[in-house]
Amino acid sequence: MRRTITGFSNPTVKFLRSLREKKHRRREGKFLAEGLRLLTDARASGVVPEILAMASGRPAHPLLDELEAAVSAANGDVIEMDEDILAKVTGKENPQAVAGVFAEFDTSLARLDRSASPIWLVAQALRDPGNLGTMLRTGDAVGAGGLILIDDCADPFSVEAVRASMGAIFTQHLAIARWEEFLPWLRDGAGQLVAASLREPTDYRAAHYEAPCFLLVGNESQGLPEAYEAECDLRVTIPMRGRADSLNAAVAGAVLAYEALAKLEA
Amino acid sequence: MRRTITGFSNPTVKFLRSLREKKHRRREGKFLAEGLRLLTDARASGVVPEILAMASGRPAHPLLDELEAAVSAANGDVIEMDEDILAKVTGKENPQAVAGVFAEFDTSLARLDRSASPIWLVAQALRDPGNLGTMLRTGDAVGAGGLILIDDCADPFSVEAVRASMGAIFTQHLAIARWEEFLPWLRDGAGQLVAASLREPTDYRAAHYEAPCFLLVGNESQGLPEAYEAECDLRVTIPMRGRADSLNAAVAGAVLAYEALAKLEA
Repeated sequence: MRRTITGFSNPTVKFLRSLREKKHRRREGKFLAEGLRLLTDARASGVVPEILAMASGRPAHPLLDELEAAVSAANGDVIEMDEDILAKVTGKENPQAVAGVFAEFDTSLARLDRSASPIWLVAQALRDPGNLGTMLRTGDAVGAGGLILIDDCADPFSVEAVRASMGAIFTQHLAIARWEEFLPWLRDGAGQLVAASLREPTDYRAAHYEAPCFLLVGNESQGLPEAYEAECDLRVTIPMRGRADSLNAAVAGAVLAYEALAKLEA
Repeated sequence: MRRTITGFSNPTVKFLRSLREKKHRRREGKFLAEGLRLLTDARASGVVPEILAMASGRPAHPLLDELEAAVSAANGDVIEMDEDILAKVTGKENPQAVAGVFAEFDTSLARLDRSASPIWLVAQALRDPGNLGTMLRTGDAVGAGGLILIDDCADPFSVEAVRASMGAIFTQHLAIARWEEFLPWLRDGAGQLVAASLREPTDYRAAHYEAPCFLLVGNESQGLPEAYEAECDLRVTIPMRGRADSLNAAVAGAVLAYEALAKLEA
């Protein structure tokens, strides 16, 4: 259904804006993705927004037409509004802007099929939504099954994480769990748990990786808790040749994932 | 010299705040770095701020005492101000906050000694200051000589880039140049120019790297211009196993740099 909204105080506008905050996303079970490219990526992955918001009087675009048709075919809402109202939703002064509302995915561990991929990324207490989105994007690139978020991580459904994922939020499986849930789940099946460690001397290039390989990266400032590393099957270190003692968490995950990918495919 | 500032309208406060904007940084030739850790990293690299700003009544900290002594010994200014004034400078409500003003470095190509390191990172039209800072951090980690910024990149002296560099802004050499200046400079000495390409089929792990190796990564959305790639000695591709066609630029740089590092050291 296509309709037009003319006022800032319209409840749908308020609803869309509210999804920029985590508590509202959680309550509604919905999240916001912005930009024609991201929404087109979602559609290519078979995910269509429940609500599509765009500026009235927007220039026609074939990808937008296809998107609108897909939303309508799925009985979703297509909502037009003035540019300045849409800017309140997207936070951007861009008449080309479009935004979509999606239902959040089930993030339970039980849904993951570990045999679906040789590599899985696992992040513990990852606080930066940009890093989180980048890890999803890297996961897609290495053909990972998905990203498992341990303990208190940034919200993967935040606008920033969704944007940094460059569409991988729609292709990678996502699970959220406490360490106390994750470890028994992992040990209940096949799986090598590999820690990106700042302590251990084993070079990441000399290590032996086994599928399904779960690559665990720790918090941006603290790294992994020692007790977590102790539970891992393998602890590997990426060499540091300079003054700094660590890499950006998303970078460390990617360097490790590409090494494991190459070894597993060799 | 230690002094106390009590008003928001104090010229030094205005000066500090102004350094959040590029045009003022360029005019003054100064930049701002925030946080005790970053300032301590700078000092460990032999770089001491010209001005150190901190909250009056701040709890004592041995690292801060050492920093203050180093600034005073170098005839720098130590300035105390109320928490709420400092918050205007740092943009953060944090009484632990400290900020330092540094002179911008000379970023001419002529200053680089290419024989100083086997690896150099080169970024073209890199727009995100977080990516830029992350590349500096990665450069430090792989023992790169520095980062060369080609064409219109984000400002490496922005607060965001400095923060993301995690201190590497003080350890990595930095040069800024147009492509038309860079290429003749590069060809005027030893150096293998390697493009991170989205087009070429040569796997980055099968390639032969030679020191000094200049690893060139392109813009976040466009990648490298075809004409630039054509000028490179080698074009390599990082495999993409998923739906996405590219990695985050800083991630691509890191994956490539670690592979080149391993091959060059083998």
